[in-house]
Amino acid sequence: MNLRQIWLDEIHQDSRYGVKGEILINHKSKYQEIIIINTKNYGNVLMLDGCWMTSDKEEKYYHECLVHPALISKINPCNILIIGGGDGGTARECLKYNNILNIDLVEIDADVIEISKKYLSQIGQNSWEDKRLKINIVDGFEWVKNCKDDYYDIILVDCSDAKEHATGLFSLGFYQECKRILKSDGIFATQSESPESFKEIHLKILNLINNVFNISSTLYGCVPIYPSGLWSWTFASKDINKFLIEKYENIKSIEESCDIWNLNYQSGGFKMMPNKILKELSK
Amino acid sequence: MNLRQIWLDEIHQDSRYGVKGEILINHKSKYQEIIIINTKNYGNVLMLDGCWMTSDKEEKYYHECLVHPALISKINPCNILIIGGGDGGTARECLKYNNILNIDLVEIDADVIEISKKYLSQIGQNSWEDKRLKINIVDGFEWVKNCKDDYYDIILVDCSDAKEHATGLFSLGFYQECKRILKSDGIFATQSESPESFKEIHLKILNLINNVFNISSTLYGCVPIYPSGLWSWTFASKDINKFLIEKYENIKSIEESCDIWNLNYQSGGFKMMPNKILKELSK
Repeated sequence: MNLRQIWLDEIHQDSRYGVKGEILINHKSKYQEIIIINTKNYGNVLMLDGCWMTSDKEEKYYHECLVHPALISKINPCNILIIGGGDGGTARECLKYNNILNIDLVEIDADVIEISKKYLSQIGQNSWEDKRLKINIVDGFEWVKNCKDDYYDIILVDCSDAKEHATGLFSLGFYQECKRILKSDGIFATQSESPESFKEIHLKILNLINNVFNISSTLYGCVPIYPSGLWSWTFASKDINKFLIEKYENIKSIEESCDIWNLNYQSGGFKMMPNKILKELSK
Repeated sequence: MNLRQIWLDEIHQDSRYGVKGEILINHKSKYQEIIIINTKNYGNVLMLDGCWMTSDKEEKYYHECLVHPALISKINPCNILIIGGGDGGTARECLKYNNILNIDLVEIDADVIEISKKYLSQIGQNSWEDKRLKINIVDGFEWVKNCKDDYYDIILVDCSDAKEHATGLFSLGFYQECKRILKSDGIFATQSESPESFKEIHLKILNLINNVFNISSTLYGCVPIYPSGLWSWTFASKDINKFLIEKYENIKSIEESCDIWNLNYQSGGFKMMPNKILKELSK
């Protein structure tokens, strides 16, 4: 083992998920501790406040599942809001669509973006130079509060776990504001934690979103570096299941560009609610 | 931290997946090192030769996915072969069906069964006392070689990773023997490793099974304690997709007994081949 190599773990309850590598940067921003570790298998990996966020080599499991179920349902010109997403992966997937007019990326921590541009350039790629992408260093909850009604076609919440500064992004008030600023035929999507490792918050998110929006569904999949590997994304719209209707004209080219997602994967993922979660929600 | 508590990890390439707990037994059998560690969240966890096998609290992610897609397709009286399965979880799920006549459980290592009976009694439950279950301490490959043609209705391969004594259970010769001893309308099922953490062997298994049997499909799901969390099970039959036809009369009662699996979960899981695996198989 190279002397500069160490094991770095996310510790969750009495489990740990670790990678071995060399620390490239360990920086305390105004909001959190930001670490980048370089590993053989996952490339550069980002940890925020002790939790794995994303990595060069497996980030597509996450970003493709958050973005495509929302965007393939839209053919009209789109005005998009991304809350969080400082690594650039969500923006990159959005920018594959030729009907995107504007993306407001609202990230609380400018340092996450700067460090991602430098150390996770494989993730953001050339999104950062795209004129359709506008960076706003603001708290996500503040941004939605100050936004006018019926403004966005798509809202994508790509945030950290439900603790510290991200707590507000899993609250009733936040979901209500998102509904207000979403167009009548708009689509809301958020990462919704793990039904295995974060069961209570997962159930809470699903219940809140289902109460606020008229229609919601949860897609289950895997994110290899997250606790338990099992993860979820929840999609919502105001009337019919907008996010389950595949409209975009160039779906084939989107599928070909993806490592994980395709229409079949998406259709399967929407069915994979573990039976114990189904039982809990039916109580 | 209790002084007797330690971190125990499965190390896979430059990742590690660890739990904190108290070692209850660390035993070297004729074939492997067998460890049971007691943890708060997962209960008792079994490790064989440094790899996590199963645990009290999340074993259903694995066992329900191996067994039910095969068994709900059968209404006739069933003669079942389980290769491996020394923890008893696969047998337990099979014994929920009232059309089971006989289960031959063929486990190479008697010590795994004895230790599981003592430390993982929540997994095997009262299966060990069921007269339909016959325990055979034999190498799985030897058992199938010596078995007569057209003998089993269902073959379930519930074995360790493709190394050491388990290598043979992922070989062309083994699959050919399984096909020979399977009845014409029988169903073959095997755990088929992770498309993320064990991509090469996963692709090999899928290709071999598809070449040997006429029909095969892979179900993807999660097993929280395995590397990356993403896992798979492959099902095969000799003519039509026997394992995709839901025949068993009491499916509702099976669904109600499950923590993870239900018909919807299964139908989703069969669609969740990651796009990069699909591309590899189409080459």
